[in-house]
Amino acid sequence: MADAVVDTVASVPVAVIGAGPAGLMLAHRLARAGVETVVVDTRTRREIETTQRAGILEADAARDLVETGVSDRILRDGHEHEGTELRFGGRAHRVHFKALVGASVWLYPQTDVFIDLADARERDGGTVHFGVKDTEVLDVTTGAPRVRYTAADGTRHEIRARYVVGADGSRSMCRDLVPEDRRVRYGKEYPFAWFGILAEAPPSASELVYAHSEHGFALISRRTETVQRMYFQCSPGESVDAWPDDRVWETLQARVAGEDGFRLNEGPVLDKTVLRFRSFVQEPMRWGSMVLAGDAAHTVPPTGARGLNLALHDVKILAEVLPRALGAAGEAALDDYQPRAMRRVWRAQNFSHWMTGLLHTAPGDSPFDLRRRLGELDNVVATRAGRAYLAEQYTGWPVDSQG
Amino acid sequence: MADAVVDTVASVPVAVIGAGPAGLMLAHRLARAGVETVVVDTRTRREIETTQRAGILEADAARDLVETGVSDRILRDGHEHEGTELRFGGRAHRVHFKALVGASVWLYPQTDVFIDLADARERDGGTVHFGVKDTEVLDVTTGAPRVRYTAADGTRHEIRARYVVGADGSRSMCRDLVPEDRRVRYGKEYPFAWFGILAEAPPSASELVYAHSEHGFALISRRTETVQRMYFQCSPGESVDAWPDDRVWETLQARVAGEDGFRLNEGPVLDKTVLRFRSFVQEPMRWGSMVLAGDAAHTVPPTGARGLNLALHDVKILAEVLPRALGAAGEAALDDYQPRAMRRVWRAQNFSHWMTGLLHTAPGDSPFDLRRRLGELDNVVATRAGRAYLAEQYTGWPVDSQG
Repeated sequence: MADAVVDTVASVPVAVIGAGPAGLMLAHRLARAGVETVVVDTRTRREIETTQRAGILEADAARDLVETGVSDRILRDGHEHEGTELRFGGRAHRVHFKALVGASVWLYPQTDVFIDLADARERDGGTVHFGVKDTEVLDVTTGAPRVRYTAADGTRHEIRARYVVGADGSRSMCRDLVPEDRRVRYGKEYPFAWFGILAEAPPSASELVYAHSEHGFALISRRTETVQRMYFQCSPGESVDAWPDDRVWETLQARVAGEDGFRLNEGPVLDKTVLRFRSFVQEPMRWGSMVLAGDAAHTVPPTGARGLNLALHDVKILAEVLPRALGAAGEAALDDYQPRAMRRVWRAQNFSHWMTGLLHTAPGDSPFDLRRRLGELDNVVATRAGRAYLAEQYTGWPVDSQG
Repeated sequence: MADAVVDTVASVPVAVIGAGPAGLMLAHRLARAGVETVVVDTRTRREIETTQRAGILEADAARDLVETGVSDRILRDGHEHEGTELRFGGRAHRVHFKALVGASVWLYPQTDVFIDLADARERDGGTVHFGVKDTEVLDVTTGAPRVRYTAADGTRHEIRARYVVGADGSRSMCRDLVPEDRRVRYGKEYPFAWFGILAEAPPSASELVYAHSEHGFALISRRTETVQRMYFQCSPGESVDAWPDDRVWETLQARVAGEDGFRLNEGPVLDKTVLRFRSFVQEPMRWGSMVLAGDAAHTVPPTGARGLNLALHDVKILAEVLPRALGAAGEAALDDYQPRAMRRVWRAQNFSHWMTGLLHTAPGDSPFDLRRRLGELDNVVATRAGRAYLAEQYTGWPVDSQG
């Protein structure tokens, strides 16, 4: 393969595989540190822009978008949420993040984060190739790794880099480059999935609503002033064809119903998707001249809204250590990466797992499990300590506890 | 049976089955409210006094022993603990209850609570029959229930009561009087047990040490200045015969070992017991003229030290509602009991289940489970919110959150 003919050869300190928020934010941060990158992604820009993903950013991540000069659009189009609502036992319970732990979160869809980052790369003259094919990452165990790909126009290209970053998401090809006998994969599958919809109707609530009922979980959010985003727990094999709008609304209304008469604003359902989810971690996060970042190294269930934030945390660290690794410190500078990133990863894995278990019902739940869960929800909302425990994890941990 | 010959018939407002801390504390509290009781137990006083049980009392429960006039011995012989130590990853992490939630706990063995209560009943002229046999509880669905038993001297007795309290522990016979089709039993079995020892050696630590290691759980406590109480996780079918002292010490030392060089003080092992444990709740807590209290209605794994405290909380409520039920309010006064008691029961069930899962390893744990647990332990100890969440549940909940 190393001898195959290519149309162009380019040299760059860092090649990034994946133009999602992790890859683009890293490229942006590295550019600010004077390190040039080339980013490639098999998806087109349009594909990435129209894939509905997470919507919650930690306040730190929101501030970073503004302060690193990506864009200040989040301040206009995003919504700062100072708390969230847990609904169970037919009642609403507010968890006031700001009052409890001094932090808030921002509702700002991942697609908007992506648009801001892609625009910033274009504005700043960064190189991003969307819609490439046949991506190969070569020689990662040497000091001179290469990336080859076929551009959208059919031409074949090679990037010679000092380091390669695998930010290619939950179906990462890069992580497979770590040999089986040198990697550990940790994982858990869940006996349910999320049924996600976009619906044309004004927001039903001013903040996110996390609902637990005997029927299962539901999450009420919004995309815009006229479009709501909602999810409800379904079985992993569910087909969207079995869900006409009426059935969707009936299910969602039942899961949020309460003695306060809360009702969702209904409207035409614009999009229906079944989202499978799992917990996953691969170690090591570095293999030779390649490092993994974001979903490529770790995937969390979406319940705790940690995925995008974890990915941005990874690249924040990488943007510190990669310039050092390219300088006098050499490869040894990368030794810091995994321990610093992984502490937060495992805390977030636990939080996502815990919040999933707290709010969902599972097919095998015993009557004891169901009642114990209500006791846990009561523990969480009824005292300041319980609410703060949830708030601190949901908003991201304070800097002094990151180790 | 109602026509069988008995040697004596006595009438009393409340008959109590079980002379453990729940039964005796209820009798003591009712006596203070002017309500006479007769308490019967199949065990001898000596048997109860020599059965090693829990050792942690909430501060409220400790204060109640003193303030209701049971005894102030706890102030002299008990130890107030303002925190506890969690050991994992080879390091110690203090959870300072007092600083976090303003509460402490008291180390005072259940056998001492029992001795104080039994002495107080004797001092105050209360009637307690130990070592009875063939106890029968009759006619609980009528307004005139009866208790029959054979005294230690072989004579047969009947107590005619208005109410019967089943405080007969985790192997309760009273709870079986609720017909199968009218009761719900919630339960969970765990794939491990506790191996408990008493050892003659000075305390290894000033506070309780809860240890989690890859080898499993251990708990370090004390009984006196010269006798330590320790537990370690073992398989449920474990036999004490397979555990010579050397093996016990080797196991315990491995589970608490750390980079700080912490070592347990070793000495002759005076007692070895395998303690099976489970989660259990029966509802309803009232059936006709009978109410259930303590372990008879609910059993928790010992990890969170909730069992004795929950039992004392039950009887605190009963000591309020039973006098009202005997007065003008009638039976309707008992309607309050279950909702008030059960809210705390389910919170404690969850806490005990959570703390068990946090600190133990289970045979079926996946590599993900093991690493996630370390992330959870990190979440709990590394921030104030996490420590407070544990502290609040371990010390009992503040009054304003009891509902």
